Amino acid sequence: MPYIQLNENLPGITGLLDYRLDTALPIRQLTQLLLRGESTLSEGERELIATVVSHGNECRFCTAAHTAAANAYLPDRSIAEQVKTDIATAAISDKMKALLTIAKTVGKSGRLVTPEMVETARKQGATDRELHDTVLIAALFSLYNRYVDGLATVTPDQPAFYDRLGNILHEKGYLPSENRYAGLVE
Amino acid sequence: MPYIQLNENLPGITGLLDYRLDTALPIRQLTQLLLRGESTLSEGERELIATVVSHGNECRFCTAAHTAAANAYLPDRSIAEQVKTDIATAAISDKMKALLTIAKTVGKSGRLVTPEMVETARKQGATDRELHDTVLIAALFSLYNRYVDGLATVTPDQPAFYDRLGNILHEKGYLPSENRYAGLVE
Repeated sequence: MPYIQLNENLPGITGLLDYRLDTALPIRQLTQLLLRGESTLSEGERELIATVVSHGNECRFCTAAHTAAANAYLPDRSIAEQVKTDIATAAISDKMKALLTIAKTVGKSGRLVTPEMVETARKQGATDRELHDTVLIAALFSLYNRYVDGLATVTPDQPAFYDRLGNILHEKGYLPSENRYAGLVE
Repeated sequence: MPYIQLNENLPGITGLLDYRLDTALPIRQLTQLLLRGESTLSEGERELIATVVSHGNECRFCTAAHTAAANAYLPDRSIAEQVKTDIATAAISDKMKALLTIAKTVGKSGRLVTPEMVETARKQGATDRELHDTVLIAALFSLYNRYVDGLATVTPDQPAFYDRLGNILHEKGYLPSENRYAGLVE
């Protein structure tokens, strides 16, 4: 049971973003800019960053939600599973391997990122902007993971719930929208 | 040296918020709402939450900046030092001790917050909204700490730098403003 009174039909982050709408708006806007705005990283690649960070921080809700969102963009559902198991052997580009390694590290602590990690990413073609966005997305999901678990929000068990949520994130993005969560909880 | 090219006159978070203005805006707006918006926690108490989380995450820049901001609000400069050393014996209310304990824990991982910590805070009169805001402020500074250190931004050594920055955060808040950082770096 959550530590504070939340709408029972809105598990995980969805109830928190409904609890205080004024703070939810800039959180949503930042997420939309970073995960759906213009970028040389694809939406699927950026959802993989969110997935890897949430998995490293053991946030079950966020991991399942962004795995589903990544799957909605990527050609193969096995890719998100692969990056959670082992970034080094996943079927992704060497640049993404280097960026996901940095992201996962940032999820633990920014102080653990090394010049060597950055150099590896640069050798694979990563730009300043890609490095910046990778670190900021990882930092943002470190916020989400702590918000969701720090208030003990509900984590549904049904995989179908996360498929529905992943579809919402794919079709509607992160900004507020009418009847956003219609049909999310059955 | 930072991992990406930043304005050399803007150390720590200031250069990052200048690097990508579109993502900086919602980060600033969220911080302004949480740390300066209407609340039953004072601005000084909320700056103490930022200080304790940043200190726990060993982000030197954020710790020094928010120590200075807390000092600009609190009657006694020793309070911020006390909460960094030992929350339990600091000269603050029992409610703030309980909330700072939760905040410091969230900075490590949301999963480490226990029902007992929340119960202790409630017994001292903490409301749902205060618990929510404490967790979200702690999560937000977990973002800042990772953003600042994950890109290896510069941490000035001079205490006077942080006094100047603390005064800016006290007088101007967190929203963008003209000539915001004039005179910050001498």
